[in-house]
Amino acid sequence: MSLLVTGSIAIDSVKTPYGVSENCLGGSAIYFSMAASFFDPVRLVGAIGPDCPFDLAKVFAGRNVDLTGLEIRKNSKTFRWAGTYHEDINKRTTDRLELNVLAEKPPKVPRAYRDSKFVFLANTAPALQLELLEQVDEPSFTAADTMDCWIREQRDDLEVLLKKIDCLIINEDEAKMLADENNLIKAADAILNMGPSIAVVKKGEYGSILCSIAERFILPAFPSADVKDPTGAGDSFAGAFMGYLAQTGKSDFESLKQAVAYGTVAASFTISEFSLAGLTSISRTDIDGRLKTLRKVTQF
Amino acid sequence: MSLLVTGSIAIDSVKTPYGVSENCLGGSAIYFSMAASFFDPVRLVGAIGPDCPFDLAKVFAGRNVDLTGLEIRKNSKTFRWAGTYHEDINKRTTDRLELNVLAEKPPKVPRAYRDSKFVFLANTAPALQLELLEQVDEPSFTAADTMDCWIREQRDDLEVLLKKIDCLIINEDEAKMLADENNLIKAADAILNMGPSIAVVKKGEYGSILCSIAERFILPAFPSADVKDPTGAGDSFAGAFMGYLAQTGKSDFESLKQAVAYGTVAASFTISEFSLAGLTSISRTDIDGRLKTLRKVTQF
Repeated sequence: MSLLVTGSIAIDSVKTPYGVSENCLGGSAIYFSMAASFFDPVRLVGAIGPDCPFDLAKVFAGRNVDLTGLEIRKNSKTFRWAGTYHEDINKRTTDRLELNVLAEKPPKVPRAYRDSKFVFLANTAPALQLELLEQVDEPSFTAADTMDCWIREQRDDLEVLLKKIDCLIINEDEAKMLADENNLIKAADAILNMGPSIAVVKKGEYGSILCSIAERFILPAFPSADVKDPTGAGDSFAGAFMGYLAQTGKSDFESLKQAVAYGTVAASFTISEFSLAGLTSISRTDIDGRLKTLRKVTQF
Repeated sequence: MSLLVTGSIAIDSVKTPYGVSENCLGGSAIYFSMAASFFDPVRLVGAIGPDCPFDLAKVFAGRNVDLTGLEIRKNSKTFRWAGTYHEDINKRTTDRLELNVLAEKPPKVPRAYRDSKFVFLANTAPALQLELLEQVDEPSFTAADTMDCWIREQRDDLEVLLKKIDCLIINEDEAKMLADENNLIKAADAILNMGPSIAVVKKGEYGSILCSIAERFILPAFPSADVKDPTGAGDSFAGAFMGYLAQTGKSDFESLKQAVAYGTVAASFTISEFSLAGLTSISRTDIDGRLKTLRKVTQF
């Protein structure tokens, strides 16, 4: 079923203990689309400036990613992010941030995308996420990401958004902040009370939790001995999660569990190489093979 | 099969955000024995002073815990620990520590215990763990715990111990410290290279990892919304883990996985109440019921 993603397209510069990657392609919509495209066609909505050195049509060649929703804004510049991951690779510092096109009006959802059934609103100001969501006619499953600055500074907008989406995908620390609750299980329950019927809390190397009012599912991360660059792990997770749901056209709890497992696997490939290389070098067969391994090392 | 534990018996004073428990019974051998006794008879080796206000025969009444190895030392005092858990209950501060009897020679393993087949050496100086281990004739599966101070200060002794045990059960931070490696999977592999054929790394609320050279198993913690007092979680984990193995008489990887799951369940009961109340108020049926729930929320 039709899958729409709205999110950032970035020029990233990343340092980790294992190397440096300067001016590489990144951004939530890019990682999401790359991961989701293993499962189902993707419709991308995002904006760049003429300075963007990447030909996205080439980047996604053969991958069934529709770029009708890509805006190239003549008088703007592409979003740039530079960051350093520490020796403890779970910690990172933002070295430079140039919002550029992200500080402007969000891109429009093209008319041809309005019938999308599965929608992912990657992290941006909740008012913009709402504006984007309103341009889709009758989505059947909508998920969004958010982050600390919106929880602190645009709480009212975020609360409106939470009432309009089916699923919030959020990091552990941000879930605790949003719920004002240190216990993660209670925090997830509190988030469900704010609107969405599903909460997915990502715990990085500790895996993730999927919660509905009635059910829970907890999955560890794939055990990765070689982590080179964690950038994009969360967006790849969301991409495979939504991609699997769109492929099956379902969003019942059993399907959501399977989607979390696919998200976990996609993230593990992303972090194994710099930038997109961990995802561009694999096939759906590799993903299914690792899913089998993940099942083997977690089932008893 | 016969299960022996050597470890501390403590008078604990604990503060958590949910209450205070003054001068309650604690210590690694106590939590271990209580959890293990749901599975198999336990032989306890430990020492206290005449100041100990608890009648351990009463504490373990009806639980098949053999106290032949309990020494009451006339001229000594019982080990005491006082600690405070923070708002983030994963963090704690030690407020007071009186080693007392723990600073003396370790208790003797009684002759009647020497044929024990399953042996757990709770955390103490590795030289003492070695001294205790040498008093057991032909154990078939030996596990030990350790902690940061021994890793830093008595590394040589610890390395000798690691060559003589089958299984190290250790916390995440300590595993990383022991292996001098930030990636937990690599750290576990490095520990296996130091001697034991099995490593169990406990990650607190994030669950645990079981590793052999050939296989891995990762299990999240039981999702607990109500955590009152984390004291004894690790020792209860070890108790149920070893108790299950002793009950079955096996230590193959499938049995170890099941043992980790039972350890996870026992720990979840321990942290739900202060001191031993979480364990003393349940039956084996409760443990098996929660194991079933744990399987349900982790399998896909």
